[in-house]
Amino acid sequence: MATVQTSEAALDTLLNRGVVDAVVRTDLERMLQSGKPLRIKFGVDPSRPDLHLGHAVGFRKIRQFQELGHHVIVIIGDWTARIGDPSGRSDTRQMLSAEKVHANAQTYLDQMGKIVDVDKIEVAWQTSWFEDFSLEDVVRLCAKYTVNRMLDRDDFATRYKGGQAVSVVEFLYPLLQAYDSVAIEADVELGGTDQYFNFQVARDIMPAHGQPPQQFLTWPLLVGTDGTRKMSKSYDNYVAITDEPNDMYGKVMSLSDDVMRDYFETLTDIPVGVLDEMFGEMEAERRNPRDVKAELAREIVTQFHDEAAAGAAEAEFVRMFRQRALPTDIPEIPLDSALQEAQTIVDALIAANLATSRSDARRLVQQGGVRLDNTRITDTNTPYTAKPGQIFQVGKRKFGKVAG
Amino acid sequence: MATVQTSEAALDTLLNRGVVDAVVRTDLERMLQSGKPLRIKFGVDPSRPDLHLGHAVGFRKIRQFQELGHHVIVIIGDWTARIGDPSGRSDTRQMLSAEKVHANAQTYLDQMGKIVDVDKIEVAWQTSWFEDFSLEDVVRLCAKYTVNRMLDRDDFATRYKGGQAVSVVEFLYPLLQAYDSVAIEADVELGGTDQYFNFQVARDIMPAHGQPPQQFLTWPLLVGTDGTRKMSKSYDNYVAITDEPNDMYGKVMSLSDDVMRDYFETLTDIPVGVLDEMFGEMEAERRNPRDVKAELAREIVTQFHDEAAAGAAEAEFVRMFRQRALPTDIPEIPLDSALQEAQTIVDALIAANLATSRSDARRLVQQGGVRLDNTRITDTNTPYTAKPGQIFQVGKRKFGKVAG
Repeated sequence: MATVQTSEAALDTLLNRGVVDAVVRTDLERMLQSGKPLRIKFGVDPSRPDLHLGHAVGFRKIRQFQELGHHVIVIIGDWTARIGDPSGRSDTRQMLSAEKVHANAQTYLDQMGKIVDVDKIEVAWQTSWFEDFSLEDVVRLCAKYTVNRMLDRDDFATRYKGGQAVSVVEFLYPLLQAYDSVAIEADVELGGTDQYFNFQVARDIMPAHGQPPQQFLTWPLLVGTDGTRKMSKSYDNYVAITDEPNDMYGKVMSLSDDVMRDYFETLTDIPVGVLDEMFGEMEAERRNPRDVKAELAREIVTQFHDEAAAGAAEAEFVRMFRQRALPTDIPEIPLDSALQEAQTIVDALIAANLATSRSDARRLVQQGGVRLDNTRITDTNTPYTAKPGQIFQVGKRKFGKVAG
Repeated sequence: MATVQTSEAALDTLLNRGVVDAVVRTDLERMLQSGKPLRIKFGVDPSRPDLHLGHAVGFRKIRQFQELGHHVIVIIGDWTARIGDPSGRSDTRQMLSAEKVHANAQTYLDQMGKIVDVDKIEVAWQTSWFEDFSLEDVVRLCAKYTVNRMLDRDDFATRYKGGQAVSVVEFLYPLLQAYDSVAIEADVELGGTDQYFNFQVARDIMPAHGQPPQQFLTWPLLVGTDGTRKMSKSYDNYVAITDEPNDMYGKVMSLSDDVMRDYFETLTDIPVGVLDEMFGEMEAERRNPRDVKAELAREIVTQFHDEAAAGAAEAEFVRMFRQRALPTDIPEIPLDSALQEAQTIVDALIAANLATSRSDARRLVQQGGVRLDNTRITDTNTPYTAKPGQIFQVGKRKFGKVAG
């Protein structure tokens, strides 16, 4: 059997950098130093295949385990995705066809492959053990866990105490996810901090299945580009793994300063000592935050594309924003009847697909985020007449040019 | 299709005599008067086949439905009995073999046949629908019910609030029992008051399976011969359905006066008007409670045996207790070494198997319940010497005669 060599430095990075919880830390250290390749579990929800830098934080941690020689098993939650949420409580848990689930899983793995060596991972499908799971299996699984502990989970506790409904099936799902660990005999599970409770459930039930409790690591949930909420497609504060270099660079440059350090720690390999120095200089005002952010943007674009693309994106960004120039590739707005019939700037923004609703359009104008041919418009009643070649700008980075 | 005629009097007896809850009463009345034969569900736990008068209360209600022409479906909870209680919380839910479960079920039906026409019932085995129940079926079932409602159940609420464990599997069982109603398309379920919550769960989930909610009736849990706790084998306060006439008669005669009326209402057909008169005379002290109890004992022995047996049991009882004579058939106590070596009355009671422990023996003596050759012994240190033909009496009805 291959053995795994782990230096003190590698161990330190593995267990401390970009890590929130290491449970149980001393057991993890011992296992990682034992030389035995460990079975590393990572669960994937194939109903959400749109990945962003928040996922990349996890993928980078998975790669660290892979690089040390551990065996990574990616569990595709295909069974759960196909069932959806029959209580109808969750919008994100729609029932999906087997074909859709498989297509999503492939998309997920393709994106994961930008960071993780997917040729070396083992892919395990939940359905392979849940398809023939009998009622007796369910009963034995549920007998291993108490309602009391289930209701310790913050989410359940808050809703239960607040008189909001918690479906019995919601008690079943953490147990099924925990059973995944039994099915693959996981040594260590990896995931975001939102998985802490579920990972703990797995620890609790594994001994009843004759297995030692798994250890686990959680990583932080990355804050989105708005600097407040966690990165998520639904908050529109995300940098997609598949974003083009210019978009990716521009979105990173729109980050608020106070989350930069987290991005450096979780999304780059720059040593902590170097980061300390960099941020020390920034705080002493010997270094411009914008330059620090540019270094982050270059690092990230290089990872997902390459150095050349990062250099080009930077050049384009500098041209556009420092020099207030227009970007070189403005999307075209068709000069259709809707645009021609628009009476006001608000009508025009909707016709041009630059606002999602009248209230959105009004808000954008009132906040001073709208320019027409480089003139800022702040009155929502400003009359509008469509002309070929007209240039709309909404916010810092959204442009449109009327066709013709 | 056969139609069912229900007189006002029959309806009144069905819904009011020996009934605690009728849910929903108005719907039940309408259904019972519709002329349609109803599907009546009655669930049986084949892990407890020792039946007593408490069960007979229910069987009599079932017979009333049967006599009106309704279709009774007895569900044997064989699936649950075979699984037992995997959380290990319940002593009574040991895992049983399929053979044992089938033997128990047959014993149960044999005893039930003393009251119910078992040729006319349909026997349904839970396993026939739970054997192939998939994880998806479980998930869909659990999605129909909330943790909030589950924790409304008194038993769960008390334990949860008191910090005692409630296993997740305990939330599954009421849902499985409720699914039984779906499987057989029950119109009405019958059972003891302890089933109220479970019957309600069935009402709640049936509409999600495209069926109208079942109605239900509950009967009171009969108080045991001790006059305080519910009748149960484990409290040793029961009259078994299979008891011999003399035992059955004697046990009924040992009832406390204040539970007699419940026994008459739930275990005899004597009209309420007649009972009112009988108990009115007893309260006015124109009638001896012992005579009223003798009538009850005769009624009950006649039901489970016949009138001749009831008459003989009464004669024996009168001879023994009114005349303080010894019973005609005293069990023999072997004159073995243990008895010969007994030094005190306490030693002797244990050696003769008339007390379960030294503390039990001491308590019996101190309470004045022990006689040796018709002499009451109240000092626990009374010396004892074994003699052939010696007669022990413990309490009113336990006797033993030393062999030889």
